[in-house]
Amino acid sequence: MADTLHLSADPVDLTAALVDVPSVSGDEADLADLVERSLREQAPHLEVVRSGNAVLARTTLGRERRVVLAGHLDTVPINDNMPSRREGDVLHGCGTVDMKGGDAVMLNLAATAVDPRYDLTFVFYDCEEVEATRNGLGRVERELAEWLAGDLAIVCEPSNASIEAGCQGTMRVEVRTTGVRAHTARGWMGVNAIHAVGEALRRLESYEARVVEIDGCTYREGLQAVKIAGGVAGNVVPDACVLTVNHRFAPDRSPADAEAHLREVFDGFDVVVTDVAAGALPGLSSPVARELVAATGGKPPVGKLGWTDVARFAALGMPAVNFGPGDPTLAHTQQENVPVGQITTCLEVLRRFLT
Amino acid sequence: MADTLHLSADPVDLTAALVDVPSVSGDEADLADLVERSLREQAPHLEVVRSGNAVLARTTLGRERRVVLAGHLDTVPINDNMPSRREGDVLHGCGTVDMKGGDAVMLNLAATAVDPRYDLTFVFYDCEEVEATRNGLGRVERELAEWLAGDLAIVCEPSNASIEAGCQGTMRVEVRTTGVRAHTARGWMGVNAIHAVGEALRRLESYEARVVEIDGCTYREGLQAVKIAGGVAGNVVPDACVLTVNHRFAPDRSPADAEAHLREVFDGFDVVVTDVAAGALPGLSSPVARELVAATGGKPPVGKLGWTDVARFAALGMPAVNFGPGDPTLAHTQQENVPVGQITTCLEVLRRFLT
Repeated sequence: MADTLHLSADPVDLTAALVDVPSVSGDEADLADLVERSLREQAPHLEVVRSGNAVLARTTLGRERRVVLAGHLDTVPINDNMPSRREGDVLHGCGTVDMKGGDAVMLNLAATAVDPRYDLTFVFYDCEEVEATRNGLGRVERELAEWLAGDLAIVCEPSNASIEAGCQGTMRVEVRTTGVRAHTARGWMGVNAIHAVGEALRRLESYEARVVEIDGCTYREGLQAVKIAGGVAGNVVPDACVLTVNHRFAPDRSPADAEAHLREVFDGFDVVVTDVAAGALPGLSSPVARELVAATGGKPPVGKLGWTDVARFAALGMPAVNFGPGDPTLAHTQQENVPVGQITTCLEVLRRFLT
Repeated sequence: MADTLHLSADPVDLTAALVDVPSVSGDEADLADLVERSLREQAPHLEVVRSGNAVLARTTLGRERRVVLAGHLDTVPINDNMPSRREGDVLHGCGTVDMKGGDAVMLNLAATAVDPRYDLTFVFYDCEEVEATRNGLGRVERELAEWLAGDLAIVCEPSNASIEAGCQGTMRVEVRTTGVRAHTARGWMGVNAIHAVGEALRRLESYEARVVEIDGCTYREGLQAVKIAGGVAGNVVPDACVLTVNHRFAPDRSPADAEAHLREVFDGFDVVVTDVAAGALPGLSSPVARELVAATGGKPPVGKLGWTDVARFAALGMPAVNFGPGDPTLAHTQQENVPVGQITTCLEVLRRFLT
């Protein structure tokens, strides 16, 4: 492992160097040490603190506005895709797209944007790829809340170097049916709970998802069965069945709105909410966000469909966007990779925006 | 444990004595020993053989026709319902209804019907309550086939002391759907295999089961979902779902007929047969069966809806009926019990028929 990272050098080489330090969730100490050491050495204009395996750095220039850039250091488990490997204009390897390309852009800016138009905060954090309770950004929010304050948050998750604004919410519900057990040889003496789910599936099949436009961004909702389980024995009419449904809802709906909607869709069924995360409005009408959009050269922002940590910033009342190199649909795949041109583009756009 | 059973004494006391020797499937040796020893002592007119934990006994009087009586010695697991307990006219305990009341009737006849109108074969066998491959009657069929030959088989399973004729067949099929996985945030990129099951459930819900009359017996068919399972993860459009359906079919249909019917019902779906047992025609038009019906005093026979070992005899080309004391719907329950009057009635009817 390198003793230090060359933060101001080529961001593609920096991405490769970050990829080559394994940092599976929970095991980010080596990489966090390296990031902290490199920032302290090469960005003396920044205030740096360490929180567990998160590293935070910020300018204190007294600017009127502050931009927060955030990126997680951890990756999903390595899957025979280490070390990094460059083929032409594509860098392959675990974490290339999710999201060490974005981390490299942030580190370069941290070292080189010594006189930015806004005060800047950089948050490199741990445990984004695991259960929400372990998320390092959540810990920072609880323990160092003032470090997350600002006028715009940019989460450098892969977005094909476009601005993906806000994010959709997600809710899981269980649709439960009950019946009466009986021997299947005398099936008419029972009530079949699996048959009763048919109507719920029919409603799912004919469901027409909303397509919602907010601040010029399109959000396409969804309602999908993700699990079904029922049955007692091969000769018993089953008395219970549970259908689990995942709803992705546009950020114009609150979790309460989404729940009311699902109770309407599954009217007559027993519906239990098991999991929910609010969406985030794109917030592109704020002055700082408008300047970011302008810096992209007018490339139109798009709505983020998956849930990301932008929602944490949105919950703090800040506009928040995803902006980073790479195709998000390659995240978590064995083949993950990033076109190196997008790393460079992201760095150029952000430099134009910030300096 | 008693050294011997008093075979010719009160059949209700004999039932209680049989119940008080535990004989959960696979653990029938003590009871089989006792039955064998008692038959050898008290029924010297019978030829007795032992096969594992089955005991077989028969007359060899050279009669023109032979009646085979069969009963299993094993019970389902004891469930805090031992020893036997008599309350008024009801005997409670594990095995009272399924089927030591029937065994007691058979043992009494074995000892007392020394000059019957038909040659008689008594088959007391093991492991009826477990998977079919362990069934003692199946083993006897393979190893001592000539012991099962005859002109009528009476399986003394509980039938409320009525003749339950033939039995329905049973078939299990898996109705499988496939789809294409996708992240639920982009659900339209996938194909949901759980949603696709909705149509199969709709067909089940609107299914109208046949009611078939054969030899004056009514068979009521059934088609019931017994299990459903599908799902990959809480945020993934599932690419597979399996619905297991149990069909109970009247004995005018062969297994091939039943399969063709299910393929028609689930036309368009992937249907896989996982389990089948043929039904048994009531065979009440045979001369010996008609005499048995007459001996009941004209009580009309009814169709047997559940699958029983009568189907094994039917497959050998013999008419076969269930006739035994007790309510079959109490079988396998903690509360199982038998009205003692039905034990006596069954013994009287069979004695009238056989002697």
